[in-house]
Amino acid sequence: MVTRTPAGALAASRPYARIIRRFVRKGARDEAARLLDRMHPAEVVQILRTLPPAERKSFTEILLSHERAGEVLAALPESQVGELLSQVGDDRVAALLSRLPPDDAADLMGLLPPERGDAVLKLFDDKTAATIDRLMTYGKETAGGMMTTRYVALDRHIRVSEAIARIRSEPEAEMVFYLYVIDEFGRLEGVVSLRQLVLAKPEQELREIMNPKTLRVRTDQPRADVAEMISHYNLLAIPVVDAGNVLAGIITVDDAIDAITDETTREMYRLAGLDTEDRVASPPFDSVRRRLPWMVINLGTAILASWVVWLFEGSIAQVVTLATFMPIVAGMGGNAATQTLTVIIRGIALGEIDFSSARRAILKEATVGLSIGVLTGLLMAVVAILWKGKPMLGLVIGLAMVTNLFVAGLMGALIPLVLKRLGLDPAVSSSVLVTTFTDCCGFMAFLGLATLLMPYLL
Amino acid sequence: MVTRTPAGALAASRPYARIIRRFVRKGARDEAARLLDRMHPAEVVQILRTLPPAERKSFTEILLSHERAGEVLAALPESQVGELLSQVGDDRVAALLSRLPPDDAADLMGLLPPERGDAVLKLFDDKTAATIDRLMTYGKETAGGMMTTRYVALDRHIRVSEAIARIRSEPEAEMVFYLYVIDEFGRLEGVVSLRQLVLAKPEQELREIMNPKTLRVRTDQPRADVAEMISHYNLLAIPVVDAGNVLAGIITVDDAIDAITDETTREMYRLAGLDTEDRVASPPFDSVRRRLPWMVINLGTAILASWVVWLFEGSIAQVVTLATFMPIVAGMGGNAATQTLTVIIRGIALGEIDFSSARRAILKEATVGLSIGVLTGLLMAVVAILWKGKPMLGLVIGLAMVTNLFVAGLMGALIPLVLKRLGLDPAVSSSVLVTTFTDCCGFMAFLGLATLLMPYLL
Repeated sequence: MVTRTPAGALAASRPYARIIRRFVRKGARDEAARLLDRMHPAEVVQILRTLPPAERKSFTEILLSHERAGEVLAALPESQVGELLSQVGDDRVAALLSRLPPDDAADLMGLLPPERGDAVLKLFDDKTAATIDRLMTYGKETAGGMMTTRYVALDRHIRVSEAIARIRSEPEAEMVFYLYVIDEFGRLEGVVSLRQLVLAKPEQELREIMNPKTLRVRTDQPRADVAEMISHYNLLAIPVVDAGNVLAGIITVDDAIDAITDETTREMYRLAGLDTEDRVASPPFDSVRRRLPWMVINLGTAILASWVVWLFEGSIAQVVTLATFMPIVAGMGGNAATQTLTVIIRGIALGEIDFSSARRAILKEATVGLSIGVLTGLLMAVVAILWKGKPMLGLVIGLAMVTNLFVAGLMGALIPLVLKRLGLDPAVSSSVLVTTFTDCCGFMAFLGLATLLMPYLL
Repeated sequence: MVTRTPAGALAASRPYARIIRRFVRKGARDEAARLLDRMHPAEVVQILRTLPPAERKSFTEILLSHERAGEVLAALPESQVGELLSQVGDDRVAALLSRLPPDDAADLMGLLPPERGDAVLKLFDDKTAATIDRLMTYGKETAGGMMTTRYVALDRHIRVSEAIARIRSEPEAEMVFYLYVIDEFGRLEGVVSLRQLVLAKPEQELREIMNPKTLRVRTDQPRADVAEMISHYNLLAIPVVDAGNVLAGIITVDDAIDAITDETTREMYRLAGLDTEDRVASPPFDSVRRRLPWMVINLGTAILASWVVWLFEGSIAQVVTLATFMPIVAGMGGNAATQTLTVIIRGIALGEIDFSSARRAILKEATVGLSIGVLTGLLMAVVAILWKGKPMLGLVIGLAMVTNLFVAGLMGALIPLVLKRLGLDPAVSSSVLVTTFTDCCGFMAFLGLATLLMPYLL
């Protein structure tokens, strides 16, 4: 099975993968370690994914004794990190994490069991421990939890020549193309790009050349908003300030990309009633546990739909063909609802819908549902008449589909927008509510109409 | 309805929106134009979205006569651009586009009707026209179609001091933090970051300080791969070369973010059988036309499922309660299939699945389906027995659910992975195939079992 890794990356990591496998099988640890020196962490992650379990185990051992293992850990999905960290001692964990930017170290520390985290924290020097400890206090889903503390911040009175000298001495900054200008209390005053610095006169002060109208985010702003801001304004990085406008860190565009990808996965997962941690590689019984509640809720709604059908058991007993056509009502309603829901949920996520356009969107989706209902209903009526030879049965199934697809369009738009309006996440419960409505109304329309017109169906 | 625009962006654009509306209603065109000078294009796009239709029309007129209208056009969704461009003459279009980077201009030109595009192209100066014309030859979905030609490329023998002077004279470059180093034939030799330039000695040649192992993409590489490469390797920009390694352009991280967002929308849309152009704001009958083919295909599969039911009409006539329980079989199978499909399709997109893990993933999803089938089947059996008082009916519906959810898990994983293996897009036809399989097998299991055990159900 071919993954969707870019051709370039594969071209780079495929030969590595083959060589690594050979080294691992031969037990040539030193050779494998030397090869690791030359690989990008993203390539190592890719190889970890594709190795068969037995070889992965040996490779992991080699990797964890390698000094760059920390970088690989930072690039791995969280679910795999915990397992790897449990294989090595506290000393080794501290050694690996101390080589990482404090924000990555804090993220990985957050994956350790609390008592182990405390033990590892004691092994850092005081300054690093304090930084990591502070970063760990921010929620994972906030700007504070995303930010790095490796940036260059300089006083507004510093001169250009000195600023350039300072860049020389900060080899570890994550975003070297912007300098953040602060006042004597550490409050963010503005930003100077490296380009402005290069073009300025050496004796100018930073406050003269800085851009004071800098976009910024607060440490407690949600991760998704920060990502959208970076994407919206095409930023390479955004400074993070606390409630007093004191510069606390910066967030770089690569972290925004990760947040956007995570956010979309979450959106798709919520639509399907899935837990974000439920991945391809999760153990089966973990997935069962996570999916079961949603399936039980759905069983409840399915029982509701079957209760509607039960109300009309008398009619079905008279005309069994009604049972034959039931899957058409449910199937078409379900598909129409999924289409409308996808357009609306995606529209909300992309910011395409607001108060004034919401009403229009609901009206539109109801119209679309009605129209498709009329067209496919007509088609189905013809099929029903040809198949069963009863014109009235064609009329009943046709009209039921019109009603059903109208309800699917209307509810598929109305329910997520109302949930959004109420401040709830529209992706979470929309699909179950919309399906319930659509199924119940669809069966009600179909079997109800059939009951009314029963004399003509017999 | 509140959109998901970041709080910061809203804080910035909300007061603007209110003032713009007041100006527009009063017909204060000059005041509105002056306000436009101070707004970010992203904010103008946001306001365009939220204005009621009548005010949007007046605002559009003001906007199009504003000199920065081109930037706003470049930031708008494609579907809205065509409409705006049709409101102004060729001269005005050329004037607006000439202020944009050539890649944005080429993208917008591509949205004009061909004969109009030719007319507008003649209004540019020869050099710009040639650049735009060349950029328009690249497919929209390729690296060539994404790249900008506004970058700084310098000969490898140029000295650091001269390179810094050259940056001064290139105010229009889109990515000023990297210089691309080329040989006498324009072939890409390496990259120098602005930071390296600042730290180097003035008399050094670029080839001495450049990084020669630069990742690059070919003009014909797919857009999604380029985006993934930029995200995978945390790049701010990537150079684009032609087949002869001649530097043709660069792609910046903000375009990668747009590509990732588009790609995800496409993935979600394909899963629901939607056309990418079918958006919240599309005219209703446009949406009807685009959704109809998918709904007709689904009608076909629904008819297939109802044909399966028809095979057992005799049994349903004997025990009408079977019809009542049919929605439970279909509903639970559909939900289980959606969950598995989402995990697998997302896993493929995120590169979490490859050849060796595919078999494991299929086995896992089948196990998960089976397990959830046993648990919810047991629950439903109890409900059925309590409701209908027939233990055998409980057994039948329970066993049918076990079969159905097993098939949903197995097919939900197998079908997209097989489609992927065959080089097809798994998101496009997986859901219809999986639904068909699940529905047919579910009804077959439920009604078939009921027919076998008929004597005990009467």
